[in-house]
Formats: sequence, structure tokens, C-alpha cells
Amino acid sequence: MSQSSFRRARRPEQKLERRTAILNAARGLAVRDGVRNVSLGDIAGEVGLAKSNVVRYFGTREEIYLELTAEELRDFEQEVRARLERTSGLEGVVEAIVDTLAARPLFCDLISECTTTLERNISLDVARGFKLDTIGATAGLGAAIARAHPLLTESEGAELAGAAALLAGLLYQMATPAPVLQQLYAQEPAIAAARLPFVPTLRRTLLAMATGLPALRESAPS
Amino acid sequence: MSQSSFRRARRPEQKLERRTAILNAARGLAVRDGVRNVSLGDIAGEVGLAKSNVVRYFGTREEIYLELTAEELRDFEQEVRARLERTSGLEGVVEAIVDTLAARPLFCDLISECTTTLERNISLDVARGFKLDTIGATAGLGAAIARAHPLLTESEGAELAGAAALLAGLLYQMATPAPVLQQLYAQEPAIAAARLPFVPTLRRTLLAMATGLPALRESAPS
Repeated sequence: MSQSSFRRARRPEQKLERRTAILNAARGLAVRDGVRNVSLGDIAGEVGLAKSNVVRYFGTREEIYLELTAEELRDFEQEVRARLERTSGLEGVVEAIVDTLAARPLFCDLISECTTTLERNISLDVARGFKLDTIGATAGLGAAIARAHPLLTESEGAELAGAAALLAGLLYQMATPAPVLQQLYAQEPAIAAARLPFVPTLRRTLLAMATGLPALRESAPS
Repeated sequence: MSQSSFRRARRPEQKLERRTAILNAARGLAVRDGVRNVSLGDIAGEVGLAKSNVVRYFGTREEIYLELTAEELRDFEQEVRARLERTSGLEGVVEAIVDTLAARPLFCDLISECTTTLERNISLDVARGFKLDTIGATAGLGAAIARAHPLLTESEGAELAGAAALLAGLLYQMATPAPVLQQLYAQEPAIAAARLPFVPTLRRTLLAMATGLPALRESAPS
């Protein structure tokens, strides 16, 4: 987009348009280069604005990516809930969660950046909004999981959903190793074989956790 | 330590002494400020060397912290194995792992930095050594867990140990939130209540996973 088309944005719909353009640019760069490798300057350059102009719409680079995380979270929640309405039983529940995460590499990348980076450079209002979004999505998913697999309570369903997202963030990092690790894995098959593959590890861990959670109800240590 | 005492390090024991001094400085700064906040320049300043001198002993800041991760891993493995010789049963196993991780905040901090940062700026030889250390420690812990709790196989024990360490890294980040999140939690008790506390979350997740893992042996999805 040219710099001139962005000269003024006085009306609400123009401001919204600019926010959308910034988010789209940030999304495209993150998909191409990984969230960690995109700077505020990169986003500004891509959208044709000065950095000082971008920060009128989002206070920091991290606020842009946290907004994208919230968008991806809503989309993930909707998709999993839609799939859970058509399935039942533990394996169906886990498959819905795992497939939906595996189809969203950007979401997994954003999750892995959240605690370590994104949440560290944002305003109080943005932090509040994001935490409320996360709490709402986790509770909504927990209720949907309990409906599809009544051996789990809503609270246990929420634990499973939260664990799935956090684990997906970790496994995504492992699935996209740095060049030096790619070189190592190519040279050393025994080391490569010890890697934790994304889908099987996520599926197996969630199945084990969901199978074990109900057993803790009576025997929970104080 | 004064700069002059470091002028030459020609003999092997002198080189070892310098490496140890660098590691100790890096450790002290990380304990005080968090791994993420310590630069190579900080370490060099603390130990009284020029950066160009430090990189004769460790190629990068990340290699220094990966070496500390390996040290902490050896210490963690030894402590858990010693405790597992004096206990049995699932709750004893989980308690040994959780207590030992909770007592090692620097190890948890380092784990959380490994995949996202440390493993991305190291040499191939350092990467190889670290991966072999990790594979060895995980297998050793898996065998010790299976001896103390024979309902788990050695391989399942290794999965449990790996999950414990990765989860501890995540939970450590959550337990040490950025100032803006500390402010948010102080203002919003409902949001603060949704946080995942380190010890109870780690204990509960490992208990659920270890309870569920044996049930997957027959019913494992293809």
C-alpha cells in the first residue's frame, strides 16, 4: 500500500482500516519469517507507514502480535467448538484439538512467544483484555469438551484445552529448529530420532492427561 | 576479580579457571536479573574481561547459558535419582520431581530459554553435546522412575521426566510475570485467580499424565 493513501485517518472507519492493514502486514511477515524475526520497523515498512505513525494504532510491536494472538484464539475456539458438536468420546475430542492446532502454525508460534516476549511489552489495558479473552476461551472450550466427553468436568476440559495450547507452543518451536539444529539432525540420526514430533506428542500427551484427570478427583493430594 | 589476574591463561588449569569464572559470573547475573536480561557484555564486565576475550572460552552468550543448563540438568538428574532410591509409588515419584524443580528456579528459567533462544546461537559441537546430555539424562530419569513406580515403563518414565522439565519452564515464566502483569493481577483478583501456580499445576499435570500413560498401551491410536 502506498504511503500517500495513508496520509490521514480521521474517521473511525479509516482508523479501523489502518489497524487492519497493520495487522495484515504483521501476519504476513510472521508467517514468512516467524514472529520472533519481525520488528516494528519491518511492519511499518511493509504497510508503508513511519514507525511513529504505527504506534498511534498499536503502542508496541508486542501489542500488534498480542492482538493477532487474540484473533487466532477466537478462530481456534470457534473451530474446535464446531468440531466438538459433531463428535464425542475422548479420541474425537483430542483429534479435534490436535488437528485444529496443527492447522494453525501461526497461532502456535504466537503462543510460544506470549509468555516469554509479547506479554512483557504491552499496556495494562491490552494485558487486561488479552487475559479476559484467554480466560473466556479456555472456559468455553472446557464446557464444549465436557459436553462431548462427559467423563471430564468443565474444569478438567479447560485444563486440557490450556495444556494443549501451551504444549503446542513448545512443540512448534521444536518443529521449527534453528539452522544449527537442522544441520545436527541431518548428521546424527540418533539425535534426530529423539525429537518430539508435533502431532503424535501432542495427541499422546493429551490422551494420557485426559485419561488420568478423572482419577485424581478422589485421590487428589492435599 | 581484577582484570590483571586474568591477563594470561595459557595452561589448561588456567583456562579451566577462566571458564569457571565466566560461568559463575553468568550464573550470578541470571539469578539476580533473569537469563533473558543478561548480555555477553554484562558477563564480561562482571568477570573483568573484554567481550573479545570471553568469546575465546565460549563462542556466544548462548553457549555460556547452555553450559549452565547442562550443569543444572546433571544436578537435577542426580538429585531426583537419589530421591527416587528412597521412595516408591506414583505420588512419591511426582513429589521428587516437583520438589527438585521447584528448588531450582535458575534451571527452570534456563529451560524456558532453551528452545526459544539458547539453541539458536550456538556451534554444531555445542548443540551435539547438549542434545546428547539431554537424551542421556532423560533416559536415566526414565529408568529410575520405572524402578520406583513399576506401573510405568522406562520409556513412559522418560516421557514424564521430559514433560516435567518443559512444563516447569513454562510455569516458571508465568510465576515471574512482567511488571505490567503484576500490576494487572494486583488490580483484578479474578484474573489473578486464573493464573497457573507452579507447584500445584506441575504436580497435578504429572499425576494425571502418569496415571493415563499406561492406559494408552492397548488403546493407542494408530
